[in-house]
Formats: sequence, structure tokens, C-alpha cells
Amino acid sequence: MAELDELDKKILDLLMKDGRMPIAQIAQQIDLSRVGARERINKLKKRGVITKFIPLIDNIAIGYTCSAFLDIEVGPQSLETVAEDLSKLEEIMVVYLMTGNVSLHAHALMRDNKHLAEFLRTKIYPIPGITNVNVSVMLKRYKTELNLL
Amino acid sequence: MAELDELDKKILDLLMKDGRMPIAQIAQQIDLSRVGARERINKLKKRGVITKFIPLIDNIAIGYTCSAFLDIEVGPQSLETVAEDLSKLEEIMVVYLMTGNVSLHAHALMRDNKHLAEFLRTKIYPIPGITNVNVSVMLKRYKTELNLL
Amino acid sequence: MAELDELDKKILDLLMKDGRMPIAQIAQQIDLSRVGARERINKLKKRGVITKFIPLIDNIAIGYTCSAFLDIEVGPQSLETVAEDLSKLEEIMVVYLMTGNVSLHAHALMRDNKHLAEFLRTKIYPIPGITNVNVSVMLKRYKTELNLL
Amino acid sequence: MAELDELDKKILDLLMKDGRMPIAQIAQQIDLSRVGARERINKLKKRGVITKFIPLIDNIAIGYTCSAFLDIEVGPQSLETVAEDLSKLEEIMVVYLMTGNVSLHAHALMRDNKHLAEFLRTKIYPIPGITNVNVSVMLKRYKTELNLL
Amino acid sequence: MAELDELDKKILDLLMKDGRMPIAQIAQQIDLSRVGARERINKLKKRGVITKFIPLIDNIAIGYTCSAFLDIEVGPQSLETVAEDLSKLEEIMVVYLMTGNVSLHAHALMRDNKHLAEFLRTKIYPIPGITNVNVSVMLKRYKTELNLL
Amino acid sequence: MAELDELDKKILDLLMKDGRMPIAQIAQQIDLSRVGARERINKLKKRGVITKFIPLIDNIAIGYTCSAFLDIEVGPQSLETVAEDLSKLEEIMVVYLMTGNVSLHAHALMRDNKHLAEFLRTKIYPIPGITNVNVSVMLKRYKTELNLL
Amino acid sequence: MAELDELDKKILDLLMKDGRMPIAQIAQQIDLSRVGARERINKLKKRGVITKFIPLIDNIAIGYTCSAFLDIEVGPQSLETVAEDLSKLEEIMVVYLMTGNVSLHAHALMRDNKHLAEFLRTKIYPIPGITNVNVSVMLKRYKTELNLL
Amino acid sequence: MAELDELDKKILDLLMKDGRMPIAQIAQQIDLSRVGARERINKLKKRGVITKFIPLIDNIAIGYTCSAFLDIEVGPQSLETVAEDLSKLEEIMVVYLMTGNVSLHAHALMRDNKHLAEFLRTKIYPIPGITNVNVSVMLKRYKTELNLL
Repeated sequence: MAELDELDKKILDLLMKDGRMPIAQIAQQIDLSRVGARERINKLKKRGVITKFIPLIDNIAIGYTCSAFLDIEVGPQSLETVAEDLSKLEEIMVVYLMTGNVSLHAHALMRDNKHLAEFLRTKIYPIPGITNVNVSVMLKRYKTELNLL
Repeated sequence: MAELDELDKKILDLLMKDGRMPIAQIAQQIDLSRVGARERINKLKKRGVITKFIPLIDNIAIGYTCSAFLDIEVGPQSLETVAEDLSKLEEIMVVYLMTGNVSLHAHALMRDNKHLAEFLRTKIYPIPGITNVNVSVMLKRYKTELNLL
Repeated sequence: MAELDELDKKILDLLMKDGRMPIAQIAQQIDLSRVGARERINKLKKRGVITKFIPLIDNIAIGYTCSAFLDIEVGPQSLETVAEDLSKLEEIMVVYLMTGNVSLHAHALMRDNKHLAEFLRTKIYPIPGITNVNVSVMLKRYKTELNLL
Repeated sequence: MAELDELDKKILDLLMKDGRMPIAQIAQQIDLSRVGARERINKLKKRGVITKFIPLIDNIAIGYTCSAFLDIEVGPQSLETVAEDLSKLEEIMVVYLMTGNVSLHAHALMRDNKHLAEFLRTKIYPIPGITNVNVSVMLKRYKTELNLL
Repeated sequence: MAELDELDKKILDLLMKDGRMPIAQIAQQIDLSRVGARERINKLKKRGVITKFIPLIDNIAIGYTCSAFLDIEVGPQSLETVAEDLSKLEEIMVVYLMTGNVSLHAHALMRDNKHLAEFLRTKIYPIPGITNVNVSVMLKRYKTELNLL
Repeated sequence: MAELDELDKKILDLLMKDGRMPIAQIAQQIDLSRVGARERINKLKKRGVITKFIPLIDNIAIGYTCSAFLDIEVGPQSLETVAEDLSKLEEIMVVYLMTGNVSLHAHALMRDNKHLAEFLRTKIYPIPGITNVNVSVMLKRYKTELNLL
Repeated sequence: MAELDELDKKILDLLMKDGRMPIAQIAQQIDLSRVGARERINKLKKRGVITKFIPLIDNIAIGYTCSAFLDIEVGPQSLETVAEDLSKLEEIMVVYLMTGNVSLHAHALMRDNKHLAEFLRTKIYPIPGITNVNVSVMLKRYKTELNLL
Repeated sequence: MAELDELDKKILDLLMKDGRMPIAQIAQQIDLSRVGARERINKLKKRGVITKFIPLIDNIAIGYTCSAFLDIEVGPQSLETVAEDLSKLEEIMVVYLMTGNVSLHAHALMRDNKHLAEFLRTKIYPIPGITNVNVSVMLKRYKTELNLL
């Protein structure tokens, strides 16, 4: 486990606000040399704290208005193969196994309810080993933040 | 809704691989001038496609090994106030209302099961209006990708 | 209970195909005088078999693309008042009490998922006596026919 | 999507009250010529707003006193074939796929509970691919209106 | 606990076939004197084996065609008072507490579904302390025998 | 359907109190001749109102202290054969199909919990077509009356 | 966390077989001096590995034939006080909070089903804050071992 | 069933406090000779009241921080073979059949959530006959006592 000191946390806070903030600006805000700031960030990457930088994309802005959760019940003997089949689908963002029943939690982004229906019928329901799929659709988003610290 | 052309998609793909990729490198890879590339990215931000850039942080690397889903059942009359109370808690990343029952789906990151128990008892259970909380803990992560396109 | 003879059934079949079919055309198709046909239809109305004639409206054609079922759980002591409150809402087409739990089954037509979310939050959840609402959204319609005979 | 203006809505309201109202009467009530009124109605049909005119039949008046909802659980791989088999049964009015579990919602009209039992045993339970059927019977009807606008 | 010997069992078998079989006939069939047979039966009553003799009444023959099971969920603090309230209703034949949830299992006989709806709304739902009632209606009776031995 | 007049009801009430009450005593209590009383009772039997007379046996008095409800889930295609298999078991008193899920409700009387466990494992679980059995045990009996009128 | 070496594990194995095994016998079996063996055991106690020694009592041998699991649902705001109330009852062996719903898992030992019913009605149901209790009774014990290593 | 007198109970109480208490000390505390005390204890063992003496081991102290309950649903026809397969796994402490559904209740001790995930995927899910596994993890222990008397 990586121990983060105060400086690490400040850097992460700055990067959370703007992941493309130039090193010079970061260095200035935390009273460090540019070289020192760059080293710190590189260390955070080497220690696995930062895995990569990404742009946050607003799915509604690009026409994906239907955010769906799939709770996919699986015969216990088929868990691994179903998890692999699901992971290959690009419409699916995450696949998790949670405590509770033997089911895989997945999150998919669709253009609308009709797109979702087609996706279920042509890509999910035919996967062998799936015994049930509980589908729910997002009605309202109250919070999505990613400030973990 | 924003219509993305092929160039937009290529830029987003590159930024997904490395959100801090310099403009010069992006411009070169898509055969555009630096100014053109910068303008494209700025437009993606102005149209709301890219909301911001963030570093992806590995929660396990910083000692948050317990990823928990909370399915929080609420008396229908209290939905809004409970959603607000939950959104204020910094341990909680997302709060959604889905179809299905009147319950708020939340995602929390905790150091371990013991931390989770304390969090539930001191911060979640006392919130007025909550009638039940179904807690599940992540056992295995098969996929987490964020390439939406 | 009204006993329907063969002639009644033929008339109802014709009206099911086109509820505005002129008497003359009906009379001709069933080998009856116009007066006889009109009398038959009037009798079907008097005996309560036909309650009224309506146009079938395609909800999607007028922009109501989200068809929702609400399974509304109610404290048993509040059943009647909740049923009345629901019946007053014009977005709700039907309100039924079924066997199973003490819940009212309702069917609502909404423009889209966002409209549904607002409707739930402002018109359904605040109704006193409701303890839970299970919401589901139609994904695909395989059959809707109204030929009862 | 069809945009309805005030005149369209008034015409639909009148037809909802009496689907066989003569053109002359409609024309008079909305201050339009007969030709104009007829044109409007024809347009509503051409644009798909009105699909057809039907008589509303009171199922109890013709001896069908038992209105049943069937929630038919299906192995995900058999969804399409079961939906087709169900749609062929004339006792079944509607077949829908909703969010929630992989189950088809159907509505059937039966003479009485005994008729329902026979129908289930001889026509529904033998359909291959069905894993469970949850049957509920209507106890009370609080509202059935079809004024969609 | 009462130990039944072979003679006791034969007597009970005969009475199960015809509860009004005269002592003389019973005595003859089991090779006992009338006095002996009567004594045996009296002993079965005194030891509490036979509590009383009743006629079995066919509920359908007298127009009670709807046999309903009520699974009545109760706040744990109200169990006793609800059980008493239910026991006073003459439409209810049996009231049991089973393992599983805090709910009272009751069996009621009704003329038809409509009678059941009225009974629920006027006599069951208003009872204070009841939080839910799950109603099911008998569709088919495969066996009802009362030969306990 | 048999219409019962006041006299019929009085006779049934008397027989409910004591199913072996002599005709003479019944006749006297309802101010009728012996012949008249006997005729009345015979008619009640001929019309199917009274199916037979039985002694009520106290299961606890004969050592059957464990009264169990079995809710037996069945693949819909196997309903009839499972119902037959269950009906053949003498430990099972009643087998019903109810609305709700495809499951058979059965009632069994057992000496104790251990007897129940053996019965389930050797006689119920091996029946082909059964997919689940929900077992509950009676904890308290608040009412068992059989006065149907 | 205590690291156990091979010797520690051997000692624990021996004590698992017989918790009153004399030091001399343990010492001999693991080729250690008596003083060494005693020291080892004392260290296991000091480090908290062994908390105490107990006799395993066969509940059936002392007439407690009914082993019950209680799944006690609680309003989230009352969790702590209900947990305390339950912990004070001597009939209850364990009280746990698990993931899943807000409910306390408890294990109780009772003489028989009747004792359990009385215990529930007089000691559990009256506890304020409890909203439901799901009771199950052990039917068969396939394994109870405590060899943790 | 073994009847315990006051002396038996006192001895069990003392042994519950310290299962390795020397005979001499027990004898002194209950005013009995050493021989008498030893005889009493031997009788408790012979009658099956005490089955053996064990050390209570603190699972957390030895690094097993994750205590899991598994509710293992089984096809009724496979109950016995699954129960045997589970009983052979040394990570599983107890295997019970309870009333309720056809499922085996098991208790397992794991080092952490990750260990649990591996255990489920490699040792539990592959067992043939298992149809579902509901996993819950202990969040807080309020009471674990073993004083049965």
C-alpha cells in the first residue's frame, strides 16, 4: 500500500480539478520546483496510485441518454465464461462480482430505451449460462464525483 | 446532441489512452495542425462532450480495498432529502435513482470491512427517512473501461 | 350477463376492424336491413356490451415514448385514499387492485425517462400513504389486441 | 413525431367522447367546414396518431369476469419464441417486455377462476422455455381511461 | 401423548368413512361388544384424540366458490392483537403463526372475487397493525383428505 | 348452487356442534318431526352440501406435534405429475394450486422436526420436476373453526 | 496478526482433539520440554490466539432440541439499541450484523417449537425498533467443526 | 434426555469459565471430594452432555478477518451430495439444513475479501447441483457466548 503525504494529496487534488494542468502551474501552487513536481507525479504513477489520465465524457452530450444497470444471474458453474463474454462487449463499461447472489453487476450506456431492448435481445440474452437479467434504467443522477481522498 | 465526426472520435481515443498527451503529438497523429487540434479539443469541451480531465486513481494502491454498493431504501416522501444527505458524504462517489424500487444506489470506497461497518453505523443508518440499506461488497472486478464511443 | 348470438359477434368483429363503419355497410355485410343493424348495435349499447367508441391513439406518434408500469405499495389502511389520489392524475391511464400484495397497479405514459423521473418525484412520491413504488419501463411490445371474443 | 395543434387536440377530445360522432357534428363544434374537419381526421390517421376506431367492450357484461395478469419468467435464451407463442393465444390481450427481470407481462380475460386454471394448465404451462408464471387476479378497478392528451 | 393400539386405529378408520356410523355397526366390524365399542370411543374422546364430530360441508355447493389464503404481515409488536381481531371474523376459518416472517396465515371462504375484494377492503385492511396482506386465490384442489393415521 | 333456508342452517349449526347428535334431538330442537329432520339431512347430502361426517382428530394428542406447510415450486411443464406424486403421499393432507407462482401448497403432519427432515429428504426432494421447497413449521394456532355459514 | 509456526499449529491440533490434555502429554507428542510446551500455550493466550477453553455441550442431550436462526430486521436508526437488547437475552448465543439488509442475525437454542413460539412472542417481538423477524429452524446438521487451521 | 441437577450446572458453569480448571479447584468450589467431582464430569461426558473440550481460537488474531455466511441453493434432488461436498472443505465450519428454501447454510472463515472471492470461484461455484450462492460478510459481532444453560 502506498502512503500518501500531504504534498501527494495536494497534487492529486489539483489534477482532479484539471488533469491537464501544466507541471509549471502545479509546481507553483505547491511551492516546489518543476523537477520536483514532475518527479512526484511520476512516483505516483510508478507506485500505481495514478493508473492513467482520461477525459470525462458526458454521455448525454453525445446522445447516449439511457444509462442501464444489468444484474445478470448466472449458473455458478458458468460465472467465469459469462464474465468474459460480457467483458468483450464494448457497450458494457464495468463488470463486477459482488457479495449477495451469484450475479454479475454490469453498467451499460445506450442511446435510448429502444436501443437497450435491442442490445438485450441480440447481445445479452443469447449468452449461454445466463439464467436471468434484471434491468434497471437510471432516472436521476444526484452525484458523480471521483475525489477519492 | 453533439454529432461527433471521425476526427473527433480519433482525438477522444488518443486522449483516452493518455489524457495528458501534448497537443503536438495529437496533431501529428491525426494529420492536423497544432492550432486545428487545439481548436477541436476546445470545441469538444465547449459542446460539453469533454467535461474535464482527471487522473484515474487505483483505490487499492492507496489502501481503500473495500468497494461497497449501497442500495438505500427510502420512504418515497423522503427521497430528495436523503439524496442530498448522501451526496454530502465524501466517502460516497455516486448517488443514483434507478427504476425498480424507491431506493438510491450509492457507491462507497472504504479501507476494509471494519471501516465499512463504522461508516454505516455512524453516517448512513442515522439519516432520517432511510428504511433499509442493502450492502454488498465487491469480490472481483472483471472490467472497468471508460471508452464510451 | 349478456348472451351474444352469432349476429352480435359478427357485428362486433366488423366494428373492431373499423369502429366508424357506416350502418349501411354493416347491414350489407351481415345480410340485415339498416334498421335491423342499427337496432342490434343500440341493444349492444343498452345491455352494456359496448360502452363507447374510441379512436386508438399511438402514443409514440405523439411523442410519448416511455410507457411505465407503477406497482405502488400502500399501507393497507390508506388503500382507498391513495387509489383516489392516483385516479385524479391524468398521466395515469389505469389503476387496479390485484391479488398479491396490497399494492395498486398503475400504467402511465410519459414523453421520456426524464419526464418519468420528474413525474415520480413531483406527483407520485409525495402522496401520503405510499410506502414504495416499483417502476418498470416498457422495452418491447409484442402484442396489443382488443378482440375480446 | 407528430406535433398536435389545439384543433387536433379538440378533435381527439370529441372522438374520445364518441368515436362515431358524425363529421358534421365535429365540424360544427370546432367551427370548421365539414371538408376541413374530415381532412384533419384523415391527416391524424395518415400521420399515425389515430391507428383505428374501436368499440370499448365491457368484459363483465359478456361473462368474462376474471381479469388476470401473468408475469411469465422465461429463460433469457427463449424470450423470442415464448413471446411469439403467447401472442398467438387469443385469450391474451397484451404481451410486453418490461425492465426488471426477464419476464413477459401478459393480460388475459377469463370467464372465472376455474376457466383461468384450465387455461394455465393447458395453454400456458406447457409452453417450452417458461420457468415460472406469477398469476394475479384483478380485485377492483379504480380507473380505466384512455384520454392520453 | 396417547398411544393408539390397532383397535383404536380401526375405529378411527371406520369413523373417518362415516362419522355417524351407529355403534352397533362399528362393534360388529371390529368384533367387539357394543359396550366395548362405545367405551373405546368415549376413551378416545376423553384422551383428547377425538375432539368432536362434524359434517364436512362442500363450500362450492353452497355458493362459496372462492377460497383465499391471506398472508398477513404484522408489526411484531402487534401480533397478538391482530391475531385476535382476525379470529373474530367469521369469514376466516384458520389463523396460524408459522416460521418465516412475522405474518399470520389465514384461510377465508368467499362467494367470488368481488366478495373477496369487499371483505379485504372493509374488514381486513382497516385492522391496525397490519402492514401488508398477500392474497392468493385457489385455482385447483388436488387433494383434501383428513386421514391422519 | 344449493339455496339454504333458515331450517337448513339451524340443522347444520347443530351438527357442527355435535356431528353424531341423534335425529330425535335435532328434530326436537328445530320443532320438526323426526321424519322431517331426517329428510332434511338426507337432502343436504343429496344436494352435495354435506359430503360426509368425520371425527376431528387432535394431531398433538396422537403425537404428531409438527404441522408443516410446504410451498413446492415446480417447473410449469411438470405441474400435473408432481401434483399426482404429492397426492399419493399419506403424510400430506392437502395439495392446492393457488394464484401467485407455479407452486403447489401442501400441508403435512409430522411427529417432530426430525421426522419432517427425514420426510423431506426421502419423499419430497427426490420427486422429479420439483425445483424448490419452502418449508415452514406452525408455531401457534390462533383459530381453527369449520363453521362455514 | 499472530504468525503461527508449525509447533503452534501442532499444539492447537492436539488441544482441539482434547482441550484438557495435560501439558506432559502435549510436550511428549511434540518433542518439547514441559516448560517449553507450557510457555508456548501461554504465549498463544497472551497473543490472543486462544481466548479460553470451553467444554462443547450437546444441546440435544440436555433437552434443547430446537435450534433456531432469527433474521431480525431493524429500522436502521434502531440498530444499536436492538443489538444491545438482543445480546442481553440468555437464550441467544450469537448476534451478528452482516452485509445484505439491515438485519441482525441471531442464533437461539430452544427446548422445542412451542418454547420457540413463546420466546418469540414474549421476548423478541416486543423489542421496540424491530420491524420483522424471519425465523428458521434447523432440520439437519451436516457438519460442525472448529478446526480453523 | 439428560436431567441436570444443580451440581451439574455449577460444574458446567465453572468449566465454561475455564475449560482447563483442575479437578481439585472445581471440587473445592462446589464442596465435593475430588473423586466426586471427577465422577460427575465423567458422567456428563458419558451421558453425552459434554462432547469434548476445545480452545476458543480468535480468528482475527490469526489473520482470518473475513467471516462469511453462504446460503447455498441446491436443486432438491442434489441436496445430499452437495452437503457432503461442502462438509469436506476445511474452510467451512458448519453446514446446516434449515426450514425455508432448499438451501444449505454454511459458515466459512477467510483471510480477507480477496481470499473469499478465490474460495468461491475455485471451490464452491464448481460443485455440481448448486444453483445459487448468497454470500454475506460479517460486519460486526455483538455477541458470541456459549453458555447454553
